[in-house]
Amino acid sequence: MKLLQEYISKKGRLVGKDIVKVDSFLNHQVDPMLMQAMGKEIKRLYEGAEITKILTIEASGIAIAVMAALELGVPMVFAKKNATKNLSPDVYSTTITSFTHGRDYDVRVAKEFLSKDDKILIIDDFLANGAALNGLISLVHQSGAQLAGCAIAIEKGFQDGGKKLRAQGYRIESLAIIDGFDENGVVFRD
Amino acid sequence: MKLLQEYISKKGRLVGKDIVKVDSFLNHQVDPMLMQAMGKEIKRLYEGAEITKILTIEASGIAIAVMAALELGVPMVFAKKNATKNLSPDVYSTTITSFTHGRDYDVRVAKEFLSKDDKILIIDDFLANGAALNGLISLVHQSGAQLAGCAIAIEKGFQDGGKKLRAQGYRIESLAIIDGFDENGVVFRD
Repeated sequence: MKLLQEYISKKGRLVGKDIVKVDSFLNHQVDPMLMQAMGKEIKRLYEGAEITKILTIEASGIAIAVMAALELGVPMVFAKKNATKNLSPDVYSTTITSFTHGRDYDVRVAKEFLSKDDKILIIDDFLANGAALNGLISLVHQSGAQLAGCAIAIEKGFQDGGKKLRAQGYRIESLAIIDGFDENGVVFRD
Repeated sequence: MKLLQEYISKKGRLVGKDIVKVDSFLNHQVDPMLMQAMGKEIKRLYEGAEITKILTIEASGIAIAVMAALELGVPMVFAKKNATKNLSPDVYSTTITSFTHGRDYDVRVAKEFLSKDDKILIIDDFLANGAALNGLISLVHQSGAQLAGCAIAIEKGFQDGGKKLRAQGYRIESLAIIDGFDENGVVFRD
């Protein structure tokens, strides 16, 4: 997706060798016009796939997911990272090891919001080693719902999460894939 | 806002005496059409207020805030609840005591995303005792930005957060105010 590549090249900031910070438009400050454009692109990719629900994970996936949900005309559910008093005990849950946060955390979705009659599209902002996506896929499998595929804003193509998931047969659509960095900045996969 | 009141009455579930669960459309599963309608209503309320940026807090505020940001044509920033390796150390921060989670937590916004030239609209999903809103207001004051006001999806009118904030002179616009519960269910303020 050209627009997202332009945002990453122009507004992303390189930190070290393999991190590009996108907190000015994606995961801290959020550009709503970009979110809407990504929602429309995700609709284009998954139109006809008979999606009934979108699943994402708090917090950075929510803005993209709600825009895609609006375009596709389906509800969106976000998996929660912490147990709260108001969350039903009747949940699907799994443990994710976060590279970003350097720790394990539990994610959970109330069982009432994922059913075996659903056809789920998973959305997240980043795909690197695939830990978060594998956790969300586990929640879908626990529910017995069908998984139509995943839509990711930015995939780090130099990590192996996307490769492994595609080898398992999952449909993974990344709106921008970063293959590395050179003297001109970010190198995208065509 | 009639549409939100209808959602609360029809899809909310009473738990105990003073909790209405709205996790089927607002804070776990999310109805994107309702989010868009709330975004449009917030635009109507704050049109002409020269908002330059929307501030919310992860996670439940994000879906509403990004829709309002799209309508108003401004960026949205969400305050983060946990320190992460990728967040700048150069942050405004404050401590919020959460009734829902039964604990204190730190919220923070990178300084680069709130400036004294901004005119901020704060958005959140719930207003009860005002703890979260007071925390977000503190972040705005720390930055030197102007605060145009706050827009809340659901205010619990029987708790005193909204009353205290209005008494301090803040503009607080709640799209639905729950004054209590009777034999027919939720009682809204007109």
